[in-house]
This record gives sequence, C-alpha cells and structure tokens, in this order.
Amino acid sequence: MNTYTDYLWFNTKKRQEFVRITDEVAAIVKTSGIADGLVLVSAMHITAGVFVNDWEEGLIGDFQTWLEKLAPAGLPYRHHQTGEDNADAHLKRTIMGHQVVLPITGGALDLGPWEQLFYAEFDGQRRKRVVVKAMGN
Amino acid sequence: MNTYTDYLWFNTKKRQEFVRITDEVAAIVKTSGIADGLVLVSAMHITAGVFVNDWEEGLIGDFQTWLEKLAPAGLPYRHHQTGEDNADAHLKRTIMGHQVVLPITGGALDLGPWEQLFYAEFDGQRRKRVVVKAMGN
Amino acid sequence: MNTYTDYLWFNTKKRQEFVRITDEVAAIVKTSGIADGLVLVSAMHITAGVFVNDWEEGLIGDFQTWLEKLAPAGLPYRHHQTGEDNADAHLKRTIMGHQVVLPITGGALDLGPWEQLFYAEFDGQRRKRVVVKAMGN
Repeated sequence: MNTYTDYLWFNTKKRQEFVRITDEVAAIVKTSGIADGLVLVSAMHITAGVFVNDWEEGLIGDFQTWLEKLAPAGLPYRHHQTGEDNADAHLKRTIMGHQVVLPITGGALDLGPWEQLFYAEFDGQRRKRVVVKAMGN
Repeated sequence: MNTYTDYLWFNTKKRQEFVRITDEVAAIVKTSGIADGLVLVSAMHITAGVFVNDWEEGLIGDFQTWLEKLAPAGLPYRHHQTGEDNADAHLKRTIMGHQVVLPITGGALDLGPWEQLFYAEFDGQRRKRVVVKAMGN
Repeated sequence: MNTYTDYLWFNTKKRQEFVRITDEVAAIVKTSGIADGLVLVSAMHITAGVFVNDWEEGLIGDFQTWLEKLAPAGLPYRHHQTGEDNADAHLKRTIMGHQVVLPITGGALDLGPWEQLFYAEFDGQRRKRVVVKAMGN
C-alpha cells in the first residue's frame, strides 16, 4: 500500500471564484503511481471549499447567486466583532463542502461523465492551499 | 491491503426519489472480504447524492419539502439557457452531499443504531450510477 | 498498512452544542502509530455532525443563528407525527456535514493554520458516539 501527498496553491484575483481542478488532481494521481485506491482533496483554509459538480458557466453563476441568498455577505455577524468581515465565506463553504474523496480505478480518477472537481474560494486574493493525498496499491 | 470496487445502478420511476441502499452496500462489503477499513459510496452523476440519515417516511418527506424551499425548482436559472431544466437538482444534491465514507469494522459496516444510507435522486427516470470502493485489510 | 479504530463519547449539557475535538482526534492518531494516511471522523447518530471550521466563539454563534434560519425548530414537521420533536436537528446536521476525512502526514493531522475539528450536537443531553478510524502506513 502506497501513499502520495501533494498540495495545490491558489491566489484568486477575485474574492469569490470557482476554479476547476480536475486535471491538476488527475495529474497528481498519475504521478502517484497508484492504480487502485482513494484520493482525498481537501481545502486547508476555512473560507474555501472543494466540490464536484458541472462545468457549465451558467450553473456556476447559479451556485453563486444561490449561496448569496442562503448565506448573505454584509449581515451584522458576531464574527465581525473580531475585526473579520468574512463570516459569510465560512457559511458558504459549509454549504458547498470542504472536501471530497475520489475513487482511483485503473490508475485514473474514476469519475462519472459530467463530474468535474472545483476549488471554491469565498475570501480570496491571498495564497491558500488544498491538500491532495492518494492512498492505494 | 485490498481494494474492491463495485457499482450500483438506479433508474427511478419518479424524478425525485430517495432509495435506501444500506443493504446493497453491506453486501458489497461482505463480498469484498475486507475486515477493517473504509468504503466510499459516491454518486457518479451531478444531480444525485448519497447521504446517511433516518429511515422514516415522514422525515424523508420533510427533507424533500425543505430542499424545495432552499433550492426551488422553476426559477429562471442561468443553467436553463443551455436547454437544461434541472439547476435545482444540482443545488439540492449539494445540500444533501454527494458521497459518504463508511467505516468497516469486524467485516461489516460500522454504523450507529439509526444510521441508514440513502441514494438521493433529484433528476431521475434515467440510468445513473453510484461507485462503491472498499479498501482495507 | 495498518488500521486503528476508536470512539469518542459525548453527552452534552445543552440540546445544541459545538464541541472542539481536534486534540482528541490528534491523540488517537498519535496512538495509532500511523505516519501517513487518512482518518475518518464520523458521527454515528443522525442528529449530530462533524465539521471543520474556525475556533471563534462569535462565528460559532453565527453558525447557530444561521442554522436556525435555514432549518427552524418548531415547524409542523411530518417526522413529529411519530412522537419525535427533532426533525430540525436532522436538517441542521445535514447542512454542517456528518463526517470528515483528515490527512495524516508525518505522524500528525495535516491541517491548515485555522482548521479546527468540531462535533456538532443538535439533539443532545444523551450519550452519543463518534467513530474515528485511521488507516495508513
């Protein structure tokens, strides 16, 4: 049984941005040499997430509109009494999920036809990290 | 360390349907011969999910009413400009979660007394798949 | 490849309570002797969750206010026709997530600077369990 660990770095131009990372994670899995197992992809910052969904610009816009409705920016959050202004980012990432575990089969990500992996940034414009850890034979 | 992979297929009669799959996954774990490890159960389609909760019809109805309130069908979603009509299904599956990882202990699923595993379909009436990958000793 | 399993028990004083468990899980990982791998931390009861976010009292209050807005207690849920009164707890735990998988690197939890692990209780004042299963080399 082998493990292989790598990290992806992000520094988004916009405060909120969804970045497709399917290819980057697939490349890490290939480098790992693992033929069969699991790979964890997990945001290491608490105002960002990782999720699987469709690679379609309209839907990405729908997600962002929807998250703003469910977890609006600019409310008088108690967290902001500490000097922070990003409580909504913590809530939004909770809706989207902060990590996924993907299956590796035959040396590659075992994904359905429309499954794409995304990094979801909700308080960007600074350097942040995602851990990618593969484990298997 | 062994791995074992199988797939569950679904073709629900209704567009939205929750299907209990605890027994099917328990059977795959038994077939795998793995005594101690983890099993990933993950929807391979982006308008379906997998979650753990209570096997009680009233609560399942509550979930569906609640999801319709949080992520309503029929809004003028941007995703629908592509010809799709299922943006709400993408949002609903995001709330419920698209995958779970269950512990295997003593050759069986290590679940609490009320934990049941469900497949959550939000755009059904077509063939869809769930990947089940067990890994352990 | 080794596995190591332990359980954390909770019996919260309040019905709803968030309990930081980073140190408890880190101690289990240390005891496991696993240097590189994954650890699953998963609530075994369906009205509780496990999540990663910030250890800041204001934000914890924000989460609780927000969850009450998205999944209010006291509505005429169908689940309550069974005699239960905790449908909202099932919904709230769904928003927060019921489990996380954490990376183990160099014999310790491989967490970002602000990542803290929490047990989220939504129907407490009774004994409940979380399974912690580590797997790796």
